[in-house]
Amino acid sequence: MQCRSENELQILVDEAKHFTSKGKVADYIPALKRANRNSLSIAIYNPDGNYFSAGDISESFTLQSISKVLTLALALMDRGEEYVFERVGQEPTGDPFNSIAKLETSIPSRPLNPMINAGALAVTHMIKGNSVEERFSRLLTLVQKLTANSSIGYNKEVAESEFETADLNRSLCYFLKQHGLIKEDVEELMDLYTKQCSIELNCLDLARIGCVFSFDGKDPISKEQLIPTHIARICKTFMVTCGMYNASGEFAIKVGIPAKSGVSGGIMGAVPGRFGIGVFGPALDDKGNSVAGMKLMRLLSEKYSLSMF
Amino acid sequence: MQCRSENELQILVDEAKHFTSKGKVADYIPALKRANRNSLSIAIYNPDGNYFSAGDISESFTLQSISKVLTLALALMDRGEEYVFERVGQEPTGDPFNSIAKLETSIPSRPLNPMINAGALAVTHMIKGNSVEERFSRLLTLVQKLTANSSIGYNKEVAESEFETADLNRSLCYFLKQHGLIKEDVEELMDLYTKQCSIELNCLDLARIGCVFSFDGKDPISKEQLIPTHIARICKTFMVTCGMYNASGEFAIKVGIPAKSGVSGGIMGAVPGRFGIGVFGPALDDKGNSVAGMKLMRLLSEKYSLSMF
Amino acid sequence: MQCRSENELQILVDEAKHFTSKGKVADYIPALKRANRNSLSIAIYNPDGNYFSAGDISESFTLQSISKVLTLALALMDRGEEYVFERVGQEPTGDPFNSIAKLETSIPSRPLNPMINAGALAVTHMIKGNSVEERFSRLLTLVQKLTANSSIGYNKEVAESEFETADLNRSLCYFLKQHGLIKEDVEELMDLYTKQCSIELNCLDLARIGCVFSFDGKDPISKEQLIPTHIARICKTFMVTCGMYNASGEFAIKVGIPAKSGVSGGIMGAVPGRFGIGVFGPALDDKGNSVAGMKLMRLLSEKYSLSMF
Amino acid sequence: MQCRSENELQILVDEAKHFTSKGKVADYIPALKRANRNSLSIAIYNPDGNYFSAGDISESFTLQSISKVLTLALALMDRGEEYVFERVGQEPTGDPFNSIAKLETSIPSRPLNPMINAGALAVTHMIKGNSVEERFSRLLTLVQKLTANSSIGYNKEVAESEFETADLNRSLCYFLKQHGLIKEDVEELMDLYTKQCSIELNCLDLARIGCVFSFDGKDPISKEQLIPTHIARICKTFMVTCGMYNASGEFAIKVGIPAKSGVSGGIMGAVPGRFGIGVFGPALDDKGNSVAGMKLMRLLSEKYSLSMF
Repeated sequence: MQCRSENELQILVDEAKHFTSKGKVADYIPALKRANRNSLSIAIYNPDGNYFSAGDISESFTLQSISKVLTLALALMDRGEEYVFERVGQEPTGDPFNSIAKLETSIPSRPLNPMINAGALAVTHMIKGNSVEERFSRLLTLVQKLTANSSIGYNKEVAESEFETADLNRSLCYFLKQHGLIKEDVEELMDLYTKQCSIELNCLDLARIGCVFSFDGKDPISKEQLIPTHIARICKTFMVTCGMYNASGEFAIKVGIPAKSGVSGGIMGAVPGRFGIGVFGPALDDKGNSVAGMKLMRLLSEKYSLSMF
Repeated sequence: MQCRSENELQILVDEAKHFTSKGKVADYIPALKRANRNSLSIAIYNPDGNYFSAGDISESFTLQSISKVLTLALALMDRGEEYVFERVGQEPTGDPFNSIAKLETSIPSRPLNPMINAGALAVTHMIKGNSVEERFSRLLTLVQKLTANSSIGYNKEVAESEFETADLNRSLCYFLKQHGLIKEDVEELMDLYTKQCSIELNCLDLARIGCVFSFDGKDPISKEQLIPTHIARICKTFMVTCGMYNASGEFAIKVGIPAKSGVSGGIMGAVPGRFGIGVFGPALDDKGNSVAGMKLMRLLSEKYSLSMF
Repeated sequence: MQCRSENELQILVDEAKHFTSKGKVADYIPALKRANRNSLSIAIYNPDGNYFSAGDISESFTLQSISKVLTLALALMDRGEEYVFERVGQEPTGDPFNSIAKLETSIPSRPLNPMINAGALAVTHMIKGNSVEERFSRLLTLVQKLTANSSIGYNKEVAESEFETADLNRSLCYFLKQHGLIKEDVEELMDLYTKQCSIELNCLDLARIGCVFSFDGKDPISKEQLIPTHIARICKTFMVTCGMYNASGEFAIKVGIPAKSGVSGGIMGAVPGRFGIGVFGPALDDKGNSVAGMKLMRLLSEKYSLSMF
Repeated sequence: MQCRSENELQILVDEAKHFTSKGKVADYIPALKRANRNSLSIAIYNPDGNYFSAGDISESFTLQSISKVLTLALALMDRGEEYVFERVGQEPTGDPFNSIAKLETSIPSRPLNPMINAGALAVTHMIKGNSVEERFSRLLTLVQKLTANSSIGYNKEVAESEFETADLNRSLCYFLKQHGLIKEDVEELMDLYTKQCSIELNCLDLARIGCVFSFDGKDPISKEQLIPTHIARICKTFMVTCGMYNASGEFAIKVGIPAKSGVSGGIMGAVPGRFGIGVFGPALDDKGNSVAGMKLMRLLSEKYSLSMF
């Protein structure tokens, strides 16, 4: 089945929107706190360049944890699979995304996967470049290509707030540094990491990135291979096993679409061989996923039989 | 791509077989210890009823943890999704399959998923029937239907040995009982559980079960829906996220086939919409998966592009 | 300083009694649940055989965890230090008394100390005798000698209730059995353990036991060495480092008296070289210690400078 | 019993010295690595100002974790009991001194005690003063008074090396900062903390500090109360329950002297009401305690009946 009109999409959004009242907007920094709790928007980007949308898709938001998929792609391009997975594991975990306890009990000490914060920090550390600026610019270029939108930048206010409140991430970094998994200056890494989290776009941009992943890294319009096939597939696999924090297992069962969420309320989905999805709904459930966004993804998957399982 | 001859399969087996020397046969009970460490066999069961095989597929072995997928299917048929997943979670875990620590720190105390021992015990507890005999007989009937082989039974020696050495599982059971997740007599549950683990079959039988899952629970020959579609899909999802113990994430990336392994050395695979796979190789790696079997699955996936990601 | 009159003691009891309202009576078995939440009584047993008391010291209660000190003494007499401490550690733990998680993460798997349930079960397992009856009878004889009260027995109703609800302890036992630390039948061990917890006495009996510990195992009246000196000292050390569950550290600082509590609300204290203390106050704090009893011990320690630190 | 001659002491040192070969010198910084693995020296400081010694007591070493007792004393003087123990717990733990996992699982997140690194860092944070220099100078003044040795300073090379390699402590600090338990700049706190660990003295100085603790904070020569009585007692209590890392329980049983060790190989002991002990033996056991020093303390305790239990 295929979504054929924005009306269809709007009906799903209307149904899912009831769930915004069950969630809470992230409040650890002012910029996120200002988000409209009742917002819910979606864009579906088809490989022919057309898209459907519902809700206000002009609202922009920051990538937050969604960026973990993109830095993973870049680090794999920069360093190769072997290098990356010697330093970061490939296993899902039942622990929260910001947990440090498992780092201590694992032998050798190594983050379980690149989608939890510890793993994502180690991955960002692997991005090549002579300076934070150069490394961030390389990442931003990738995002601009994936979205075919050269105007994409980052939200400076969010980056600065994140930088100021990132003590738990600093704790993870120093732990990894102690174990030789991070070698650079922690403040520089935090600078890069908080900028990556603050890349700002909208639902449609996100849906376009999802679409590139749906076609294994190939831009469906330009036919350019933006991310090598096997790397795009690795990314999608992590999106299935660990993309939705510690609700990933349930999401795989109920939705079955490779997806990655962020605490801004964004969700990027990639329906293999079909289309990309971008969702924005800032009210979060207690695991950090967009509560109405999750519902919307489920309705969508059920209506159009999108589950890969 | 499609496997077209047993020669092709034999070449892959020959290559994977080198890896048997890197593994160790399970030795916690005599019957498993007697297994031939160098064995490696595979069967691929196609929906038209034809199959390819390589290695000695007449060797029989016990299901062990592979049975967890089948009891999950039966429990879901008996109790429904809501009942089951109120009592057992859906999240993968980075912990070993027999871990108890996470049960204690989770609130509420609930096994993380049905593929770890704690979850599997809670699931087996849910199988309906007036006695252990009746419940086991219902499970065995399901296995006989899935394999279209009414001669399948269980290995009494293995069941008895497992029963005698199952103290860690008893520990898990009493923990679950304390938290109200298990209500029956623990020795009866252990009787049922060790029998389920001791169901005996061969590679070809296993491949046929895999084939039914490949076609969402529908027997491709008889066209009978042996397991309801949505339940078969749930099972396949767990096979992807937690089927290979705490190597499931890596297996998803490198192989990408829904699969479940057991410490007897068996692996059941289900290539969606295509065919089922049964592998037997008793030499295990340190996570409890068949070491040569894992290699063989990977070679197979690469040669015939079987990854779903 | 010395307590010179029951009036003095009564004043302290009156003050401490206000705290009973802050606690909750243990409710996991009916017999404990029936206890009078407002009760508070104390006896101080001097080596000359005289005693002071306040509150209703005729109320009897069960030993519960206080019995752990006595089984430790008996096991050390039966097996010697080396044997016992190869199987049970000597380190305090910040975990709750019934925790199993640390057993799993410790290498080798060994209970951290004899005052947490896992350690106490391993210790009770060490008590010599040809049957549960004989082993329990040996323990009861020791208690009767220590109290100079041959009428002491156990509360059958409590023992039976504890036996029925002891699934968490069974879970610990099977875990220890898996690791070779317990070899006997778990139900027999549970029978012995729940009987030991159900030994019934009153404050004065308890104070007399404390007094024997105060004098390093020597009965101050009969001059008989009931427990060898070095064993009595080991017991007192554990009372300091782990006697009050995971409030032991704070108790050492604020009270400084070797003591052991139980969920019945009893506390046994042993002021080195001076006297024994028995307290009963069934309203418990959230760590399982008598809330008014703790307060009373503190008032007592402050008034008479009883801290050993 | 009383030590009456240095000959007696020398005999014990000779016996304990055999154990140096079982240990390893700390090697995480060059200055500690250079220590002579075979060294073993002891001083016993009596309240009359006389002392006995054996081994080369002129060898100087750094306080390392022994400093945790002194900063605790100073923080308690600066802030009072209530303030300090709202922020740091009083319970011993079975975890290693540098563990972070328990911080995560404890609710509220609070270091278990002031003798593990997390707790010690939070305590050092509490020392009053307008700058690191002033705060360190206040601590050093206290040490100089306790030793009656105004020449005591700190080892700059050690402090700098510790500062450079303190990533695990930085990780703990940022974790505590995230939870509001540390508010100052982490690098400033690390500066102060690594200086405190690098205070340099010898066995005799250490024995004199121990002697002051033996007499509840009162300098036995000058009769000045250098540390308030109740604070000195609190410190001694922590020395018993958590002074020897996660071997504290065993040490309490086998030795029974309030003591604190450091990874430089120093041990400070305080025999209540009698004398102070300073030991130096840089070869460490696997828990971070001086291996020969532990043996020597045990021989001493047995020979002169020094156990407080």
